[in-house]
This record gives sequence, C-alpha cells and structure tokens, in this order.
Amino acid sequence: MLKKYLLAPGPTMVPEKVLLDMAMPVIHHRTSEFSNIFGEVREKLKPLFGTKEDVLILASSGTAAMEAALVNTLNKGDKVLIVNAGKFGLRWKEIALAYELEPITIDLEWGRSVTPEQVETKLIEHPDIKAVFMQASETSTTVYHPVEQIAKITSLREDTLLIVDGITSVGVVETKMDEWGVDVFVSGSQKAFMLPPGLSFITMSKKAWKKTELSKLPKYYLNLQKELKSQQKNTTAWTPAVNLIIGLNTALDLMLKEGLEKVYKRHETCAEATRAAVKALGFELLAKDLPSNAATGIILPEGFDGGKFVKYMREEVGVTFAGGQDHLKGKILRISHLGYHDIFDTIIAVSALELGLKKFGLYIEIGKGVKAAQEIIMKSLV
Amino acid sequence: MLKKYLLAPGPTMVPEKVLLDMAMPVIHHRTSEFSNIFGEVREKLKPLFGTKEDVLILASSGTAAMEAALVNTLNKGDKVLIVNAGKFGLRWKEIALAYELEPITIDLEWGRSVTPEQVETKLIEHPDIKAVFMQASETSTTVYHPVEQIAKITSLREDTLLIVDGITSVGVVETKMDEWGVDVFVSGSQKAFMLPPGLSFITMSKKAWKKTELSKLPKYYLNLQKELKSQQKNTTAWTPAVNLIIGLNTALDLMLKEGLEKVYKRHETCAEATRAAVKALGFELLAKDLPSNAATGIILPEGFDGGKFVKYMREEVGVTFAGGQDHLKGKILRISHLGYHDIFDTIIAVSALELGLKKFGLYIEIGKGVKAAQEIIMKSLV
Repeated sequence: MLKKYLLAPGPTMVPEKVLLDMAMPVIHHRTSEFSNIFGEVREKLKPLFGTKEDVLILASSGTAAMEAALVNTLNKGDKVLIVNAGKFGLRWKEIALAYELEPITIDLEWGRSVTPEQVETKLIEHPDIKAVFMQASETSTTVYHPVEQIAKITSLREDTLLIVDGITSVGVVETKMDEWGVDVFVSGSQKAFMLPPGLSFITMSKKAWKKTELSKLPKYYLNLQKELKSQQKNTTAWTPAVNLIIGLNTALDLMLKEGLEKVYKRHETCAEATRAAVKALGFELLAKDLPSNAATGIILPEGFDGGKFVKYMREEVGVTFAGGQDHLKGKILRISHLGYHDIFDTIIAVSALELGLKKFGLYIEIGKGVKAAQEIIMKSLV
Repeated sequence: MLKKYLLAPGPTMVPEKVLLDMAMPVIHHRTSEFSNIFGEVREKLKPLFGTKEDVLILASSGTAAMEAALVNTLNKGDKVLIVNAGKFGLRWKEIALAYELEPITIDLEWGRSVTPEQVETKLIEHPDIKAVFMQASETSTTVYHPVEQIAKITSLREDTLLIVDGITSVGVVETKMDEWGVDVFVSGSQKAFMLPPGLSFITMSKKAWKKTELSKLPKYYLNLQKELKSQQKNTTAWTPAVNLIIGLNTALDLMLKEGLEKVYKRHETCAEATRAAVKALGFELLAKDLPSNAATGIILPEGFDGGKFVKYMREEVGVTFAGGQDHLKGKILRISHLGYHDIFDTIIAVSALELGLKKFGLYIEIGKGVKAAQEIIMKSLV
C-alpha cells in the first residue's frame, strides 16, 4: 500500500463528501430540480469573488474562461497591457495574439511581483490601452500580484478594464471585486474550490458588461451575453457539467460553513508554515516580493534533478508535488496549500520534503523544517 | 420514496461503477498515471467512431466541439452548406454566422431527413461550398440523416469537407468515419457514452487536418493543432476534466466488453420496441423518414399540454422524458434509448407513457403499448 497525497497546485484533493455527492445519479439539467441547485450555487459563489454581479459557470477549464474574458470585451487591434511574469501571464499574451490584439507587456523575471507603478507608467505611456491583464496569483511562480492597488489605477480610467485571472487566488485570499474595482475575475474548479477540473467561473463589472456591447470578436460557446441571459434564469446556454455543479454546491457549503475568513486564514497558516520550514532548511523562496498563499515555490540547488525528485516523491513516497514549468523545469519545486488542505497536510508536505531531499543526498537536518512549520501552526490554534 | 428514471435524450443514466470510479480521489494530470489512462481511453474511443485517426477529448460540452470543427477548418467568407432540420442543425448555422461564414441552408420541416439528392443539388448549384454541416442524429426531432450516402458525394470533392455532429449517433449506431469518408465527427459524453456532461470528442480525416493549415479563424482553447500535439503525447493542452476521463475509461470498458455490435443492437431493439408501442397506442412518430435509434419523438394530440405532462411525469411518477424544443415546445414528447438503457428501461418508459397519458385523460388501452414493445423485445432475446 502507498497512501497518496496530492500536494500540487491543481488539481487538488477533493473532500470525500463532494466526491460522493458527485457520484449520485445524474439529473436532467432542464428541470426545476437542477435550476434550484444552480440558483443556490450562483448565490453561494458571489462572496468568494466579493461581488454582487452574476458569477457565470462554464463547462471548461480555466483557460476558456480567460479566453471568454478577452473575446467578450475587446476588439481586433485593441492595445492591451499584459503582466507577463510567468506561464499564465504568457497565456494572456498568447490569447491576445490569437485574436490579433496588440499586446504590450511588462516582462518580469519569474518570481517577481509587478508593482502598481510599473502598470501606471505603461498606462501613461499608452493612454489608449483598453485592458490590463494579470494574474492575482501566478501559479507557475507562486507569486501574488497587488490586484487591489492596480485596480485603484485602472478604475479611474473609463476606457481601461482590469481583467484578472484569479484561478489560484479566489477562495485562497479575500477577494473584493466590487470594492476594489476589478472588472473581470476568472477562476477554476480544481483549485480552492475543492473540485475536480472541468468548471470555470467568470464575473464582470457593469463597466465590463458595457464593453461586451461593443466587442465584435467572434465567439459562440463563450458568448457571455447569451450565457448571462440563461444563467439569470438559473439555466445554462449549453449543457452544463451537471455532476460537477452538484459537487460545487456541496463544496461551497463546506467553505461557507467553515466561514470564508477561516478558509483564508487556513491557507495563510499553511503557506506561512511552509515558507518558514523551507527557509529553516536553508532554501530560497522563488517568490521575491509577494508570495502567494496558493503554493510555495522553492529554488532547488544548482545541478539537483528536480524532475527526478518529483517523480520519486510521487511514485515511491506517495506525495505529489509540482516541479517547475518551461525554463524553470527541474529547477524549482512547488508545494500547494490549496483547497481541501489543512495543517497536517502541510506537516506531511514538509516532512516528505525533508526525507526526500535527504534521500537525494542533500544536507538536511531532519525535523528542522517540521519544527519551524509547527511553530507557525501552533500560533494559529485557538 | 419516488424511484427515478432518467429517460430523456441526454444527460442519460450513468452506470454505478462509472459513478464510483469518478468518486475516487483526484489524480494529477501531468503524471504517467494519468497519461497511461488517457492513452488507453484514446485507443478505446477509436472503434466507436470507426477511425484510425486521433479522437481528441475536450473539457467542454458538445457545442464547443461543434465550434472547434468549424473554427479549425474554415475561413471568414467561406460558403458552407447546412442541413437545417432541427435545433442542432440551426446551431451549425448560428456558429457559421458568428464567424462570418456564408451559410446556405437546406431547410427541412422538423421530422424530415435530408436526402443525398438534396445535398448534391446544392453542391452542384454552389461548387464553391467548402463544407457540409449536418447532424447524424438530430436530437430535437429524433431523426437520423443518411450520413454514409452523403459522404459518398462529399468525399469525391477535394475542396468540400463533411462535418458531422454525432452527439447522439456515435455509440448508438455503427459509425465508420474512415470507410464512409466523413471528415469531422464530433460527439459528447452525456449521451451513449454513459457519462455525465462535461467532455466532448472530435476526430478529423487527413483531408480535414490539411484544411487546418489554411484556417485563419481565431481560436485558442479550441485550437486543435495544439491539442493534437499534446494528445499524441497522451496529455492535454489545457487542464483535462480528470475524473470524467477516469469515468470514460470505465464506461468504454463496459461498452467494449459488451461488444459494440451488441451495444448498437440494444439501442435498435429499445428504439424499435418504443416505436412499435407508440404506434400501437395510436400515436404518430415525429420522424417521417428515418427515425433515430437515440430517441423516439411522438406527436401529442392537438391541445394536449405536453409541458405540464413532462413536469407531472418527472415530479409525480419519477420518469424524466423530454418535451419539444423551440416551436415544438409542448407539442411532442421524446423518449430516450441512449446509453445505460436496457430493455426494461424501455418497458418502464412505455408503461409510464400509458399510465400518464391515461391520467391526463387520453383514451389509452392500458397494456397495449407494453405488449407491442414486449413482442419486439422477445425477438431480440437469444
């Protein structure tokens, strides 16, 4: 037997109750039974995004929701600013290029957070920028970007939208879309929402909905005006992923019952404990400015085979971490704190890290990281 | 207690084993464990489509796969022929218009099948037609269209693709994409594949893949060249709906173990039995030419409130049928034979129909439909 622990930043572990509720017989989506559940889910999603606007649920992974954000609000040739600070920042740029927009980028070293000043400078240089695209939490670099501060800048500009990928921030840190003045927030099911992949979410400000009236980019499945019209009647434009929505209802109940403040605090505690542990073990964090509470990235020593390590940990120790992506492949390790993840999952993560790294020949003082993590966790106990 | 039976043409009932396998803990998608399953699933899908080509699996409902078929093979301004014989035929037209193609339609009364001659006439009139779009089985009208015969015409034309929505035909009737010369086949998980909604499938001929090189329509999430590159390495371009793919593996095992010939025969028997039953009860089939084995549509008497009937049957009797869509709303009833549906589900369907219609005041000779259905089923027993 090898007991398994999924500690990578998505997909993440799913509570047993959610899995079993999704295993209930399928119900038809054009019925009051489904519409009642769908209506409930729609309401329960709003506090997670900090919005009174509709949160649309799509049958797709998060990338399609990112694409939906762009194709519904912009036009060919539009100048857009992209915070390119990791794999998912780059994805915004790729989508913009696919639709023949004109992306201007702020290119940052992987591990850095953008500053509000960097965004403002570009907006002053190019007053015709129609939208700023960014990640709240850039999963590839385990970095948080200051969304709230950037929204202060964009919300003053009538013709500039702020479009945020919150795939690993919504449900992790408090998100106040309306209050901050963010125009579009997207997210996905397989992260803090404690569900398998297959659902994505998108919510838009009135300013963004207004732009949809002017957007001429072609779309069909991702036509959000059509989707809004249906979802406001508690149904969907296309066949919804029924069982995932049933599971979402259960997962949201679990989150709301715990209380969102506690959900955020739990992520913070696990993230802080992990950061303290890896620092105690002598490692450097990948996140130089603002670390994300979704996952912790650590820089592996020069010459260390990160790919082999991740494979060994998964196959022989039962612990799934994530390695690096693109040019960081093999060079970093990412440990998740997302979703159905509590303090002892963090203890497992740190313990596994110590054991594995020592097995791979690094000098590790066994227990030092666990102790540091425990000290942080201790403070969080009520 | 009200025991429930889902007898509408999608979503359909899902085998308990599939539901429970999907309730197993989530696994990470960038691992050999997932890739091994994904590779198996990819192989097992091919015989259902009758193809040696790759069958791509998307995290979306069927509509997105329809859109993918178009945006990957065609260009703005292209003239295309659409068999507009129901709600889903109309969807092809809507997608074509969203991307500024020039659709020419064959408009048929709902309930009619297109003839190969009708298609050929249009192709002769407009030799510059780049693609013919059709349904194999038009779910809204319970009609089958002669795909094989139409492919004989299109496959002779170097510059014309045949793009077929097989959402309620693949897994229902024998499908020989390669042999027939169909260029694109799409399908979805929640019909014959015995899964909840959330996955779609698309497979393309070499002729269609060649056209993807010339297609300049914008796309990102639905970029099939990118998807093919990933899926040929047993991974996906975007995060896959992991648990649904695990369920698909189990569902395909069940279908292949039963044997595809028997799967098709089972659908045929249930469909024939239902047709015999409703005729014995004095009703007219909606399908005038070729009935689909996916579902049987029956025309309700003038003045009968079909909407109220469907609601009553679902809420009071526990049997979910489907009503009509668009202008047929309230006027027809659709009974599914799709997927995890065996002979006694058909007996339930017919029995429920008799009881419900009599309750609603129609003259029904109780037992007459069931007897007719049983006589057909009797012949199928080995």
